[in-house]
Amino acid sequence: MLYTRSLDSGSQSLIARLRSGDARALARAISTVENRATGWSELLKALFPHTGKARVIGLTGAPGSGKSTLVDQLAKHYRKENQTVGIIAVDPTSPYTGGAILGDRIRMQDHYSDPGIFIRSMATRGSLGGLARATADAATVLDASGRDLLMIETVGVGQDEVDIVRLADVTIVILVPGMGDDVQTIKAGIMEIADIFVINKSDREGAERVEREIRAMQSLATRNDRWTPPIVKTVASEGVGTAELAEAIADYEAYLKKENLVFKKNVENWQERLVEMLRDALLEKARAQMETDGGSLQRYAAEIAEHKRDPYSLVEEIVRGAERT
Amino acid sequence: MLYTRSLDSGSQSLIARLRSGDARALARAISTVENRATGWSELLKALFPHTGKARVIGLTGAPGSGKSTLVDQLAKHYRKENQTVGIIAVDPTSPYTGGAILGDRIRMQDHYSDPGIFIRSMATRGSLGGLARATADAATVLDASGRDLLMIETVGVGQDEVDIVRLADVTIVILVPGMGDDVQTIKAGIMEIADIFVINKSDREGAERVEREIRAMQSLATRNDRWTPPIVKTVASEGVGTAELAEAIADYEAYLKKENLVFKKNVENWQERLVEMLRDALLEKARAQMETDGGSLQRYAAEIAEHKRDPYSLVEEIVRGAERT
Repeated sequence: MLYTRSLDSGSQSLIARLRSGDARALARAISTVENRATGWSELLKALFPHTGKARVIGLTGAPGSGKSTLVDQLAKHYRKENQTVGIIAVDPTSPYTGGAILGDRIRMQDHYSDPGIFIRSMATRGSLGGLARATADAATVLDASGRDLLMIETVGVGQDEVDIVRLADVTIVILVPGMGDDVQTIKAGIMEIADIFVINKSDREGAERVEREIRAMQSLATRNDRWTPPIVKTVASEGVGTAELAEAIADYEAYLKKENLVFKKNVENWQERLVEMLRDALLEKARAQMETDGGSLQRYAAEIAEHKRDPYSLVEEIVRGAERT
Repeated sequence: MLYTRSLDSGSQSLIARLRSGDARALARAISTVENRATGWSELLKALFPHTGKARVIGLTGAPGSGKSTLVDQLAKHYRKENQTVGIIAVDPTSPYTGGAILGDRIRMQDHYSDPGIFIRSMATRGSLGGLARATADAATVLDASGRDLLMIETVGVGQDEVDIVRLADVTIVILVPGMGDDVQTIKAGIMEIADIFVINKSDREGAERVEREIRAMQSLATRNDRWTPPIVKTVASEGVGTAELAEAIADYEAYLKKENLVFKKNVENWQERLVEMLRDALLEKARAQMETDGGSLQRYAAEIAEHKRDPYSLVEEIVRGAERT
């Protein structure tokens, strides 16, 4: 086997239990990779060969767009088709906005009785670790656990979210009428990633306007894969439109297969993820290197602030320094 | 001199003209560092000793919050005090949302006749280069050119923006009443960075509500520096509140000085920036290393997508490989 690794017996049994569908083993494995606990890297290496089977759906939308409710509805829909579901809810939470987490907790209890649905919340981590990386690793674990379908939901407001949905095979952008923001003002980078648009709370006034605006934008640019993202109207709180959305998801998956785009998309995603992983790993090494050399980021930063050093030369020196070791 | 570097005569004359206030030299120098054109790194090294004098103000707010108008008003205000002003307008533009750039062009013409105001737009760059880095470098050039005051304005929606305003000594977060988004739903990470809150378009209904919400949030957390961000109400389109905002800015600057926080803040900013710079430099090196080894990101990504390789081991190998050279 390509992937045979020396794993201690604890990790081996964790993997065995996780692969058999044990939710507690699953939660523990995710915590291990999320917290970079001992053995996290070997665990991911051992799980990787078991990945690539789950369908991965990314959902993003502004706060208040009804994302979580929509994800719940989809989860119920897929459970009726006997598919097992994993949900990763990414919460860029802060001391000021603790609300998002609370909502999730409530949702988690709601599904508690169905072992076919596994929900995990990921909160914002330090800017070094990176939420995108943590989410990707959690998705790897869930995929390896044999879940048929993963849903990753994020608040759609920034580059982080773009990075996160890049994990997904199918990306859904959720808009809501009458939120005061024209589609025009939605963060650049978010509209482009939509494989499917959802207008949720579509019983509200202004749904047609949002639809027109999406169509107008679509007329400005053609996607590389020549897919025109459909617009699905939902009222998630009442379950309206869920089946249509599931159909749209299946349509896009079929399109990707028909056009032989699955592999291409996969390669592109991995390219981006590799870059991220490399950056993190190299930075960690440089930090260690600095400590060895008796320097530290803080000391260097102080010297720069005092104008005793210029940062541009320093970075060149450190990069060269790492070469010498 | 610590910073003596071998610069060709062209660069030396560029620096001399830039330091004498020549706007065309300034524009060219910014383009050089933005596009990573030949000599960009030596240019920054040569300019660095001349930096650290400008006051740097960061302004961030949602699209439609009147950011640009407010920046214009502040610029006029400072010009009356005979201060020279540099403005960097960061536009996370996309094929879909070309509007922001257009607005800036119009603004730029408006100020064309006053050489005391220099405006530069920065559009979204590839995810590798990084908008935050490009903005930081442009700010270094403007600072070295002798501008008294820099304003950096960004759309306040994500981590990019948080990184960008980190450059600033004073950060202003602009809110608007009745945009449908409660303060509660504003992206985490944005509210925390405000040294001053502005409620723009404060003649609209709901201004008091926004103010109450900010106050309620402030009661939940104390800042490390014990500063309570004031709330300034403006109607930027009519120039209302501009003087009060300038006063609030001066107050915070005075507070930082009184509490000896200027240097501390500077060191913290440089720590973050060094990390970013190191990541970029190391990644570039790793890419070059891969090419030398006959590999490439694309090939590796394909092998991972085919499950012939696991990414976690690969990254470890590449990081080790870079060591050997």
